[in-house]
Amino acid sequence: MARTTGDPAKRYKCIARIKFWRRSRVGSDITLGVLKYKVTSRQPQHFQFAKIKSFMHRALKDDYNYSGSFQEAIKPVLIIAQIFALMPVRGIGSKFAEDLTFAWSSFRTYYALAMMILFGITAGYIVAFLTNVSFDFDSVETMTFYGSIFIISISFLQLARRWPAIAQEWQAVEAKLPPLRLAKERRSLAHHIKMITLVATTCSLVEHLLSMTSTITFAVACPRWPAHPIDNFLYFNFSTVFHFVEYTTFLGLLGKVINVLSTFAWNFNDIFVMAVSVALASRFRQLNDYMQRAARTATTVEYWMHCRINFRNLCKLCQVVDDGISAITLLCFSNNLYFICGKILKSMQTKPSASHTMYFWFSLSYLLGRTLILSLYSSSINDESKRPLRIFRMVPRKYWCDELKRFSEEVHMDTVALTGMKFFSLTRGVVISVAGTIVTYELILLQFNKEETTAFTC
Amino acid sequence: MARTTGDPAKRYKCIARIKFWRRSRVGSDITLGVLKYKVTSRQPQHFQFAKIKSFMHRALKDDYNYSGSFQEAIKPVLIIAQIFALMPVRGIGSKFAEDLTFAWSSFRTYYALAMMILFGITAGYIVAFLTNVSFDFDSVETMTFYGSIFIISISFLQLARRWPAIAQEWQAVEAKLPPLRLAKERRSLAHHIKMITLVATTCSLVEHLLSMTSTITFAVACPRWPAHPIDNFLYFNFSTVFHFVEYTTFLGLLGKVINVLSTFAWNFNDIFVMAVSVALASRFRQLNDYMQRAARTATTVEYWMHCRINFRNLCKLCQVVDDGISAITLLCFSNNLYFICGKILKSMQTKPSASHTMYFWFSLSYLLGRTLILSLYSSSINDESKRPLRIFRMVPRKYWCDELKRFSEEVHMDTVALTGMKFFSLTRGVVISVAGTIVTYELILLQFNKEETTAFTC
Amino acid sequence: MARTTGDPAKRYKCIARIKFWRRSRVGSDITLGVLKYKVTSRQPQHFQFAKIKSFMHRALKDDYNYSGSFQEAIKPVLIIAQIFALMPVRGIGSKFAEDLTFAWSSFRTYYALAMMILFGITAGYIVAFLTNVSFDFDSVETMTFYGSIFIISISFLQLARRWPAIAQEWQAVEAKLPPLRLAKERRSLAHHIKMITLVATTCSLVEHLLSMTSTITFAVACPRWPAHPIDNFLYFNFSTVFHFVEYTTFLGLLGKVINVLSTFAWNFNDIFVMAVSVALASRFRQLNDYMQRAARTATTVEYWMHCRINFRNLCKLCQVVDDGISAITLLCFSNNLYFICGKILKSMQTKPSASHTMYFWFSLSYLLGRTLILSLYSSSINDESKRPLRIFRMVPRKYWCDELKRFSEEVHMDTVALTGMKFFSLTRGVVISVAGTIVTYELILLQFNKEETTAFTC
Amino acid sequence: MARTTGDPAKRYKCIARIKFWRRSRVGSDITLGVLKYKVTSRQPQHFQFAKIKSFMHRALKDDYNYSGSFQEAIKPVLIIAQIFALMPVRGIGSKFAEDLTFAWSSFRTYYALAMMILFGITAGYIVAFLTNVSFDFDSVETMTFYGSIFIISISFLQLARRWPAIAQEWQAVEAKLPPLRLAKERRSLAHHIKMITLVATTCSLVEHLLSMTSTITFAVACPRWPAHPIDNFLYFNFSTVFHFVEYTTFLGLLGKVINVLSTFAWNFNDIFVMAVSVALASRFRQLNDYMQRAARTATTVEYWMHCRINFRNLCKLCQVVDDGISAITLLCFSNNLYFICGKILKSMQTKPSASHTMYFWFSLSYLLGRTLILSLYSSSINDESKRPLRIFRMVPRKYWCDELKRFSEEVHMDTVALTGMKFFSLTRGVVISVAGTIVTYELILLQFNKEETTAFTC
Repeated sequence: MARTTGDPAKRYKCIARIKFWRRSRVGSDITLGVLKYKVTSRQPQHFQFAKIKSFMHRALKDDYNYSGSFQEAIKPVLIIAQIFALMPVRGIGSKFAEDLTFAWSSFRTYYALAMMILFGITAGYIVAFLTNVSFDFDSVETMTFYGSIFIISISFLQLARRWPAIAQEWQAVEAKLPPLRLAKERRSLAHHIKMITLVATTCSLVEHLLSMTSTITFAVACPRWPAHPIDNFLYFNFSTVFHFVEYTTFLGLLGKVINVLSTFAWNFNDIFVMAVSVALASRFRQLNDYMQRAARTATTVEYWMHCRINFRNLCKLCQVVDDGISAITLLCFSNNLYFICGKILKSMQTKPSASHTMYFWFSLSYLLGRTLILSLYSSSINDESKRPLRIFRMVPRKYWCDELKRFSEEVHMDTVALTGMKFFSLTRGVVISVAGTIVTYELILLQFNKEETTAFTC
Repeated sequence: MARTTGDPAKRYKCIARIKFWRRSRVGSDITLGVLKYKVTSRQPQHFQFAKIKSFMHRALKDDYNYSGSFQEAIKPVLIIAQIFALMPVRGIGSKFAEDLTFAWSSFRTYYALAMMILFGITAGYIVAFLTNVSFDFDSVETMTFYGSIFIISISFLQLARRWPAIAQEWQAVEAKLPPLRLAKERRSLAHHIKMITLVATTCSLVEHLLSMTSTITFAVACPRWPAHPIDNFLYFNFSTVFHFVEYTTFLGLLGKVINVLSTFAWNFNDIFVMAVSVALASRFRQLNDYMQRAARTATTVEYWMHCRINFRNLCKLCQVVDDGISAITLLCFSNNLYFICGKILKSMQTKPSASHTMYFWFSLSYLLGRTLILSLYSSSINDESKRPLRIFRMVPRKYWCDELKRFSEEVHMDTVALTGMKFFSLTRGVVISVAGTIVTYELILLQFNKEETTAFTC
Repeated sequence: MARTTGDPAKRYKCIARIKFWRRSRVGSDITLGVLKYKVTSRQPQHFQFAKIKSFMHRALKDDYNYSGSFQEAIKPVLIIAQIFALMPVRGIGSKFAEDLTFAWSSFRTYYALAMMILFGITAGYIVAFLTNVSFDFDSVETMTFYGSIFIISISFLQLARRWPAIAQEWQAVEAKLPPLRLAKERRSLAHHIKMITLVATTCSLVEHLLSMTSTITFAVACPRWPAHPIDNFLYFNFSTVFHFVEYTTFLGLLGKVINVLSTFAWNFNDIFVMAVSVALASRFRQLNDYMQRAARTATTVEYWMHCRINFRNLCKLCQVVDDGISAITLLCFSNNLYFICGKILKSMQTKPSASHTMYFWFSLSYLLGRTLILSLYSSSINDESKRPLRIFRMVPRKYWCDELKRFSEEVHMDTVALTGMKFFSLTRGVVISVAGTIVTYELILLQFNKEETTAFTC
Repeated sequence: MARTTGDPAKRYKCIARIKFWRRSRVGSDITLGVLKYKVTSRQPQHFQFAKIKSFMHRALKDDYNYSGSFQEAIKPVLIIAQIFALMPVRGIGSKFAEDLTFAWSSFRTYYALAMMILFGITAGYIVAFLTNVSFDFDSVETMTFYGSIFIISISFLQLARRWPAIAQEWQAVEAKLPPLRLAKERRSLAHHIKMITLVATTCSLVEHLLSMTSTITFAVACPRWPAHPIDNFLYFNFSTVFHFVEYTTFLGLLGKVINVLSTFAWNFNDIFVMAVSVALASRFRQLNDYMQRAARTATTVEYWMHCRINFRNLCKLCQVVDDGISAITLLCFSNNLYFICGKILKSMQTKPSASHTMYFWFSLSYLLGRTLILSLYSSSINDESKRPLRIFRMVPRKYWCDELKRFSEEVHMDTVALTGMKFFSLTRGVVISVAGTIVTYELILLQFNKEETTAFTC
């Protein structure tokens, strides 16, 4: 358009980057028309460098940064996982799945193993408390919590060893899929997963703070060492263990660390399954959208064969991923259900203080919301995997072929979904079963509702 | 036939109307043979005008008035909705879906919004009552009631914004369907919906009057201001709110208005889902009947292609409608189940007075009946959508073609039904699940049956 | 073989009968080789007449008497029904469905109506007793019993009006089915149904006698008129009604008659559904056996077309029958389940006398057994309707054709079964659901088991 | 390779054995290349005899001993069965199913019948104890136990009569399957079943010893004849029976024998179903692996026809086996569920001694584990029978044929699985239903948890 007076060196560097960027997307149908035009060789000296620079910046930020790959989208989730001593895989910052490795002799692995052992010891102490001191509902719940965390950390260690292979499979499948055309489409998955992570972590933080507040309320009301408020808090935070071990400030702090990490690890479990579900569903959607655009037009047998192979790859990918994470999924769902039922059981009790009440209701709402959203996200894979059926309906009679018939029957016969250890498939129906179970349980409880008050018993 | 001596002007007017009426039905296979014959141009002066006039009157009344369209059939339902401050869509009187519009700045919308806010405020007061004053089963029920009404009014506002689009989609699909041949067929849908509306509204009115009677019984037995019977009634009608707000006669009246409108809105919810279900099912039936007439005869590939496209349109229409109303459907079912279970819970109690007893049993029967009929109507869509399978069975081997095979597989694979937020499909099986749930609940209750008496506690 | 010296006249009569008998089975592949041989025209005077006479007698008894038709097999069930004032259809003794008629002005109908009214009056008195005198579990059970009988008698009256049409449809479908080749096959259905009727009626009789014994025990222990033992018995037999009406010996006897008829009518309900189920399943089996014999051999498209049409007819027949009896089926199952649960509820109570104990356990076992067998019989229709799928598997590749493919898909897609008012299909799975429900209920009861003793309270 | 100086006679004997061994595997693709090479006739005197001898030994041990047949794999299970007086079939040591026979007049049958009668008598005494002495939960459990054993021994006698036919059918089906290529594959099934038998029997032994310990604890605490500890133990071991019969040492020993045999028979029930399930699943896997190897390559219609016939044979075999053992399967599952629920019911009670506690928890864990593994093994048949669908997906378009389409539809439509008396199919879903039932039951119990203590009541 207008002339440019910018620094040629910079300009060429920019062009080089554009070329690099374009090359890295060979075969993709890019519609950033303006950019294309300016880069043509016939007008090398006639464009406004400032404009293209700013455009480049935007493009680089929005588009270059986002290749739309799973590897890229799952990155923040994995970083958070490693902060909380889960998933000790190396190379999670890379754009390429080939860079991912697992090594036993790495700092991340040591960190994860150390925390795993600490979780195990804590769970062991609580089992000892249960069998020797007091077998009540609260202690069973605490034991379930730390037991779950222990199993979760083992599961994620297991998963970490298989993750590089899964990520490479995923990358290979993605490479063959029809490319994402718009920058918005490439951006969307990563943004979605970031949002999930953000919201869930925030809620988890709020819940943990509320939980601390109610512990503090108790520590203030019934102090053990009236002069040391922090020690008081740390003591009551981990009182079950300190029934067996002599309290020291160091152990108190360690207990708090274990407590914080376990809370977040427990929460992270759900985030991880959500993120993977969203990513898998988005890949199915990518293929479906591609097919939907072509469905009403003239299509060839080869086109549908290509689509069918892509669909098959996705199904296989879903199974590979499910083989890796189905134990985590089962843990996730059973845990959520257990704690929801446990909390509902206590919903009839009068709480000892306002901070307990707030903690209780926030915690219950968060649990319910998280379980609902988790169910919806994970069942969306199944929904998307069935959508081709609706797309095939649009194909005109002329282009209906045997290949399409085979494709249609395969889609109909398959159940593509994440599973809980292969025991149940996560489909839309699961949500209503889960809801039904909770409501039934609540109804039975309501029936035998006796007003109980749990006062402070210092 | 015989000669006519009538007024030529009138005659021509009549002919003009006949022509207009025929024109408005271009392409439809009308079998009113007599009329056809008389209107032919060759015999303009030779028919008995009185006869044709009376015939015309009947035809106009039965046939002209009824085009058999959904727009026409749903009209009375929408009028009632607007009386009770729901569905503020403009142009519901028109025969054409294009005339429907939604505008924020319209009297209907203001009215709906005002009532919505009042419902919200009422619900808020009851929540305050629950948390501050008394947390018992009756108050929870009242809260659920007003909470539901609040959500219902929001849902209908949402729906009102999408309604013009849905109605146009519906009209477009209807235009392509094989036309209804007989006047009786065209009349049937509108009559059916009118009957539903009439019966349900009457029952709702009776229930409300009985409910008022039992409130009056209470107000008479335990008067607050013995001299002002109406104030007494208005006070007890909304006593929860007047725990916080000073009672004035105006507020009492307003409370009664809110009370009446909410009762009818709650009831209207079910009527609306029933009407839409009946209308959708009737459209499937229309296509099925058309196919059934031809199934045993010689049919072409084009015929079945045409039918398949029509069927596909109906499936898409069902989905569009479901996207619009699935929240309302879920509310409808969960509400009914909740109140049925609540009422059954109280069925063991001895009622304080005969008017309470009557109100209780009428209300329970009405709820049960309404839920049953609602389930049956809404599942009839699914039933009708599966009927083509039975029709295909009749097609002789000679006319069996690939197109028919594809059609048959599509019908088999699809689940066409209204859903409760996509969580469950409304099929015939739902009825038995719902009944099973209620019976199980009742059985558990019977087991722990303790004779309770709820006396007046002034 | 050997020569005969018998009376030629008798011989010819016999031959005529043989011919008549053969003619009545035109096209059927009869394998009674000996008979065939002797009847040939070339050897008219050379067979031992005595032998053929005895053979004829056997053949006539086993084979001629049994055409294998439904009409014939259901006859004893209908006769019993009419004895107990149900199913007032005329012409049930005929071999031809065309002879069946229903008439309002017939003795059977008057008898059925009279009993229906008496059942209704009895039910009304018990409702009055419930609302005015005592609302306890036993009275509710009695009310359910007489209420059910009232509804059953209405349902059978309804059915009687539609029965002639159903029986004719059945006869028409049977006529087109491949004929039953062996006398044994023709006999089997009628024998099976007779056996069901016999066993169920005997058990019902035993149960009623045991029930009478326990009433007598009570009447003897707490006599009202110590001098009149029979009046005592008749009084206590219908004590609920005699709370309102003055006791007279006539009314006492009438009460006993009502009591007996209602017990048998209640039992007959199940017999009827069993008999119809067995008959329907046997017709499917007949077609399946015919197909199985041919499956591995060379078959033509026409052969399978013929079979498919026959199968289709059976499916339609099943639906017609179901439309007629589905209300009765639902009543049957819900009744059985209700009384089983009721009895289980009382299984924990200590019985007041040995005769009560015996009655209780016999009654419970009979109910359980009857429900199990009813479920199995009624689900056998569905089992048989799915068997063609297994038969098609045997067809060699060479004879696999499109017609067979269509047939196979139809069998797969259809659900052919009796239903409970279309709410649930009677398949094998129903049995396990029903058993599961009972066991769950029993488990919950066991949990809250409190030893209760129901002593005599004169 | 190198020369041999060994004894020619031995060498030839060895060669003869090799030849025999090879002959017995005509058509199988053996890949033991070294052996093949050495046996060729051109180099008869030039191989190291010692090496080949040792190789031969290994080969004979690993491979010759294992033909991979079911007959061979089930042998240890049947031997154990006969030790515990079940499955009195003769010829179980043979490699050929033809050698299996059942005879009434054989020692095994007499032994089985004798034990069956003793189980029956024991069950009878406990019923007498229940009705005459004390009707409590523990006695009902004992009765259920001995009643089940009685029915199990009848069921296995029934099965024994049909076993020769089943085994021959199995052998015939196996003969037509694609052969197992590697020695490892041939070995695997027998090893698997041995392992199951070993682990289950060991656990059962441990459980029985723990049970004896708790009986001893009781006998020591409350001695009947303080001077005779063994008599004391034997008395309390069978105290229910000795309530009716005078105690003698002989009867006490007989009681202990019955007790031991019944415990193991009860346990064996599960082992048997597991072994059969594993064997059936392995046969499906064998065919699937064979198909999977060829799926991506060029295949002919004949190839798939051959596979389809094999698959069909397996389905039929599965049905034949299921017809034989479905009663045992139902017993197995209902028994396990009953005892799990019973144990959970007692989980809240405080145990009277440490040995009781240990026994209780070991027993519960073992029961839960066994039921879980049984469910997984038996559902693996269904899983494997569905795997062909996934294999068909890999077939390239070029080799996709009508035969494959028919195969695919058959796999999709069929439900191949063991069943519980045809009432429910053992699929993966059963596991979650069973788990759900147990958890629901536990939840309801937790709700009404009352701390009970069952102290010694001498």
